[in-house]
Amino acid sequence: MPPVITFLSDYGLDDDFVGVCHGVIARIAPDARVIDLSHGVPRHDVRSGALMLRRALQYTPAGIHLAVVDPEVGGERRAVALRTAEEDRILVGPDNGLLQLAAQRFGGIVEAIDIAHSPYRLEPSAATFHGRDLFAPVAAAIAAGASLAETGKPLVPDELDALHMPLAHVDPDDGDLVAHALAFDRFGNVMLDVEHEELDGSGLRLGHPVLINGEHAHYATTFADVPAGALLLYEDAYRALSLAVNRGSAALHLGLALDSEIRIRAVE
Amino acid sequence: MPPVITFLSDYGLDDDFVGVCHGVIARIAPDARVIDLSHGVPRHDVRSGALMLRRALQYTPAGIHLAVVDPEVGGERRAVALRTAEEDRILVGPDNGLLQLAAQRFGGIVEAIDIAHSPYRLEPSAATFHGRDLFAPVAAAIAAGASLAETGKPLVPDELDALHMPLAHVDPDDGDLVAHALAFDRFGNVMLDVEHEELDGSGLRLGHPVLINGEHAHYATTFADVPAGALLLYEDAYRALSLAVNRGSAALHLGLALDSEIRIRAVE
Amino acid sequence: MPPVITFLSDYGLDDDFVGVCHGVIARIAPDARVIDLSHGVPRHDVRSGALMLRRALQYTPAGIHLAVVDPEVGGERRAVALRTAEEDRILVGPDNGLLQLAAQRFGGIVEAIDIAHSPYRLEPSAATFHGRDLFAPVAAAIAAGASLAETGKPLVPDELDALHMPLAHVDPDDGDLVAHALAFDRFGNVMLDVEHEELDGSGLRLGHPVLINGEHAHYATTFADVPAGALLLYEDAYRALSLAVNRGSAALHLGLALDSEIRIRAVE
Repeated sequence: MPPVITFLSDYGLDDDFVGVCHGVIARIAPDARVIDLSHGVPRHDVRSGALMLRRALQYTPAGIHLAVVDPEVGGERRAVALRTAEEDRILVGPDNGLLQLAAQRFGGIVEAIDIAHSPYRLEPSAATFHGRDLFAPVAAAIAAGASLAETGKPLVPDELDALHMPLAHVDPDDGDLVAHALAFDRFGNVMLDVEHEELDGSGLRLGHPVLINGEHAHYATTFADVPAGALLLYEDAYRALSLAVNRGSAALHLGLALDSEIRIRAVE
Repeated sequence: MPPVITFLSDYGLDDDFVGVCHGVIARIAPDARVIDLSHGVPRHDVRSGALMLRRALQYTPAGIHLAVVDPEVGGERRAVALRTAEEDRILVGPDNGLLQLAAQRFGGIVEAIDIAHSPYRLEPSAATFHGRDLFAPVAAAIAAGASLAETGKPLVPDELDALHMPLAHVDPDDGDLVAHALAFDRFGNVMLDVEHEELDGSGLRLGHPVLINGEHAHYATTFADVPAGALLLYEDAYRALSLAVNRGSAALHLGLALDSEIRIRAVE
Repeated sequence: MPPVITFLSDYGLDDDFVGVCHGVIARIAPDARVIDLSHGVPRHDVRSGALMLRRALQYTPAGIHLAVVDPEVGGERRAVALRTAEEDRILVGPDNGLLQLAAQRFGGIVEAIDIAHSPYRLEPSAATFHGRDLFAPVAAAIAAGASLAETGKPLVPDELDALHMPLAHVDPDDGDLVAHALAFDRFGNVMLDVEHEELDGSGLRLGHPVLINGEHAHYATTFADVPAGALLLYEDAYRALSLAVNRGSAALHLGLALDSEIRIRAVE
């Protein structure tokens, strides 16, 4: 089976950025198969990219996972290649937290390499296009047989930059589940920082009413379970707790911004 | 030659829906080649998807044809895999008419399987993402060697849901060809429900004037045959009769909506 | 290694145009690997397509390079397949200047074929979709082993249509470098007709101030070198001289249109 490289970025598809990276990979690793996960991450939105990478990778073959959302390109941030504890996946991209959530899902990082001065870097390298000149070449070199260690200098995984994210918790005073708005889709649906595994003991019961920031809603399986215009709490296709308004926008309805606090209370 | 899977949907490319389906296919059928036909079908527009699938498949290798435009996902509609009489093509998708026009083009359906509870379905399955959890895995399983019969339970093809579409005809009173607006492109060009083969005996002669809903127009080969702003009737690149205004919008010019009736009369 | 076909167009991804061309290629050359460079060239903008093709191809494997930006499709323009002097690259597309800049970068054209009546053309051919019926089939036929000569009739390369483009030069009266706005990106950054190799003797020194149309600016390495709102001159990721306003639009700031003259003067 040929090596698989997955590719996620905020490059969009209007320009030739993605196509040129494919070209670079094909020159270095002609046998590699490249799977585009998405290039529609909102520009410079590292956290949305990190969330997308985390939820997508479990559905792809283990391989080399190239990800570029890189607002500080040309600045001081490190460039890294990482190996995960589980499934031996390789993550390649900027050290700005983009790779962190995916790495956690696969058991954390067991090997980390600083690739800023990788021998596989293209020269001359542009200060503004590390996807083409650094990340794609390193990912392709690994696909073509280079060991991770050969791509740069070893790093201690603890030195890697972390994403700053809110943390869902139960309020000890009133028992509310306090979640946060992690991401929005184009329909105004809101993804929260609570996954399926974290619902045990929350008191939430599927099919029962809940209060969302004091407003009545239903904890439902699908949009079709509530009337048009009604607010619902549900598990999205990646089993993360989410908010929606059937045929409307939960983000607008509740006036939510990124990281907004959302208090969820089961109604008896 | 590796098996070919074509993939058409209304998922768009902003999210990771398409990329994740590619990942699922690559895990199950690493040798399959996936050709994206388009993921730009207007959201939930089953008929536009059905028309696109019909006209596109004749240009692709025979293979497994995955299509997902699925407004009723999670509801009662069936999920199916079908075999066509000609070319032995396999169609996989929701049973909402999406696959019907393509099946007709290849001689109709000779085998139909209900895949709702397919052994190839991913578990846990999300109620809202059958592309990832049901349709892509079944398409990939067939590409990897599963027989159609192994993917679910047999159905009688006559039980399949049908698209409701207008039907072009000749008005016996005045001899007008009565067509309908089937689809619009982003330039306001209007595709009609009349194909090249159906023009025999219509009295329409290329290069001659016609009346369109009483308005003068030309039956021309290309836009360049008429002045800017002029209305023309022409065969589109898929040989379907279409309306356009050179450097303008025929949809706006004639005030057409989906399924609007269009009366075409040859002028002597 | 399987043959590589790169594909660039202004088709966009909303329709099935690109997918159908992929299908056509897969029928004729099932082993070929297709790399999409971009399908986001502004509609009918031949020069932007030519610039994109020129800068992208150096990053792709040598192969067959299919490009379709074709405002005169169905009219009198020729359709061609060309071989470059260096790297033996094959360019396939309309003869409207689209292929010219890429050909120059690879040493010019050593063989030119008129493919309008190619034996590999699909029949019936649509007057408006030569990408599907002519260019993709010819590119695929070459990938599948046809010689360039077999795809049509020989042409003298000097007969090919040329792009009309401004030419940067030094004004003998005042020593200004007179450049032009070649292309704009979606952020209002402006690409000029001056490449890295042409800067020798310009008197421009990195890190020093310059006058742009009489306005103060910095010749900088990256956006981060100037404050927000400041005008900068820099080399873009393809080493072409460009203008930007940090967190703003240089095109709006300077009131530039396509081909606008830009006078650059080094400040002592």
